[in-house]
Amino acid sequence: MRPIQAYAALSAGAPLQAFEFDPGPLGDEDIEIKVEHCGICHSDLAMIDSEWFPATYPVVPGHEVVGVVTAMGPRAKGRQLGQRVGVGWHTGSCMHCRLCLGGDQNLCGQRQPTIVGRHGGFADRLRAHWSWAVPIPDMLDAASAGPLMCGGGTVFLPFVKKEISPTSRVGVVGIGGLGHMALQFARAWGCEVTAFTSSASKREEALRLGAHRTVSSVDKAELKAAAGSLDFLLVTAGAKLDWDALINTLAPQGRLHLVGVVTESLQLRAGALLSWQRDLSASPTPSPALLGRMLDFAARHQIKPQVERFPMSRVNDALDHLRSGAARYRVLLDADFS
Amino acid sequence: MRPIQAYAALSAGAPLQAFEFDPGPLGDEDIEIKVEHCGICHSDLAMIDSEWFPATYPVVPGHEVVGVVTAMGPRAKGRQLGQRVGVGWHTGSCMHCRLCLGGDQNLCGQRQPTIVGRHGGFADRLRAHWSWAVPIPDMLDAASAGPLMCGGGTVFLPFVKKEISPTSRVGVVGIGGLGHMALQFARAWGCEVTAFTSSASKREEALRLGAHRTVSSVDKAELKAAAGSLDFLLVTAGAKLDWDALINTLAPQGRLHLVGVVTESLQLRAGALLSWQRDLSASPTPSPALLGRMLDFAARHQIKPQVERFPMSRVNDALDHLRSGAARYRVLLDADFS
Repeated sequence: MRPIQAYAALSAGAPLQAFEFDPGPLGDEDIEIKVEHCGICHSDLAMIDSEWFPATYPVVPGHEVVGVVTAMGPRAKGRQLGQRVGVGWHTGSCMHCRLCLGGDQNLCGQRQPTIVGRHGGFADRLRAHWSWAVPIPDMLDAASAGPLMCGGGTVFLPFVKKEISPTSRVGVVGIGGLGHMALQFARAWGCEVTAFTSSASKREEALRLGAHRTVSSVDKAELKAAAGSLDFLLVTAGAKLDWDALINTLAPQGRLHLVGVVTESLQLRAGALLSWQRDLSASPTPSPALLGRMLDFAARHQIKPQVERFPMSRVNDALDHLRSGAARYRVLLDADFS
Repeated sequence: MRPIQAYAALSAGAPLQAFEFDPGPLGDEDIEIKVEHCGICHSDLAMIDSEWFPATYPVVPGHEVVGVVTAMGPRAKGRQLGQRVGVGWHTGSCMHCRLCLGGDQNLCGQRQPTIVGRHGGFADRLRAHWSWAVPIPDMLDAASAGPLMCGGGTVFLPFVKKEISPTSRVGVVGIGGLGHMALQFARAWGCEVTAFTSSASKREEALRLGAHRTVSSVDKAELKAAAGSLDFLLVTAGAKLDWDALINTLAPQGRLHLVGVVTESLQLRAGALLSWQRDLSASPTPSPALLGRMLDFAARHQIKPQVERFPMSRVNDALDHLRSGAARYRVLLDADFS
């Protein structure tokens, strides 16, 4: 078996460097794909930097992968050689627990993240259980489908699982890699859409991406003026925010939902939830079936991430660009292995 | 119009004393009831003590009232003279906003609490908008129905509004005035029921009230052993708790729901919600229609509060008993005005 060519961090925060590894025999239910494109997500930075928990090095990041099926294990189902598929945050789950059988494979206790304890998509090839390699609809631009597999799926999940209605007044906090896709999904879903951003320069862009109005996420007066005006507030930022002020923008029975990884403890007044029967919730990346529904919906509504492209050989420039905060909005690597 | 005889606190934390007031003309849509019984809730203590916000004195507490309709305004509907009704935390709402029209009168911006800015049920008579005076089913013991009107309704709301299923594994935290009713509702709802209590002496009683098992709410090892075992955790206590440890007892997609008024800010890790798609929510007392459904359900399943009764003339003894923490589980006043 030919080794996999990849880019890896060998220690916390280190620049990535060329790295080869032997993937071993292909699992019975696994498929292998030739990587064409891979988005970069803040979770990749968190793993490189050992931010969430002590990472095991080398770390090969990359979990917004689009590529073509080049090999299939003898018991892989429902995929074909040559088919274009996407892989997101997970590459496997036990497939036999109640959560897996119930269609919530993303909540399986044995779920396997693509870049934790194994190597990801900054590589020429990637393997995954067949079910987690989701077919990319023909109508979708393959190059920009990668960021839908993690960021897109993450912001899409609550629309289905938390039953956002087209009559809902939806706010999106943080207009970045996730938020700029959330605005498009919310608009296509038929909702009234409000963008919350701390950046004056993003307000115009948010309107272009689908928002009907914008509110400063840091101006107390603007936040107060928005009190009680939202049914659903989707927080895509990972920063510590003024949770009480944000909850106050919710109408009775409104929901604040987190999809950004907020590492600092939340602090909030229970009374603001109780008096108006509000919810606080959060969710990770979706199941395979939901990823498929998301891709179909994105294709039908021509929702796609706004990307800045780098050849994968310039991965460190791409990572620096994302770290700088200047990315508008998702950074995408095109595989250029020789 | 004969003055209303009542018991009032004239300043923060003061013992109650006899107090008369002129209720003025009866509102067009209001009814007047002769008070027979009135439960005592921790919210009464909070108002007497000016604990939640600066109370306006005199405060006449009492919002778990059962009595008989003795007068009706000319536009009061659906009630009859001589009918037995109950009144809980609210006596009115605007009746024309979308929340009222949609059946969520308890979330109306103009909702009128029974004991805030007006006088409550520690009195010989009480007035309310007809809709908030809910008929007591004949099969229900009238004397013990009072505590169902606030405490009972409060713990019942999430079963309906948060869609607790009979297949759910439900935990109840805090076995007191609210919690001891929650255990009965959860058992009658068909759920697997776990009682969480910090009091060793309440563990046996919790089993008698409907729990299948008990867990210490303060023993870290017991909490840890319960990890991932619950679908719904109903927190009836108002104290500051180890929120992360409690959230950890939830299965994926589980919900922690607060009905106790927790005045201190909540502090919790967002990651525990996000990784397993868990919810945190809270709710106040229910709408009139839901109070009616709760009373029907309680009557059919013979759910009733366990009460300790005092004549209303001994209201200060009753309040002291509740304050002492010794009440098992709800204190009930029987009106004995001459």
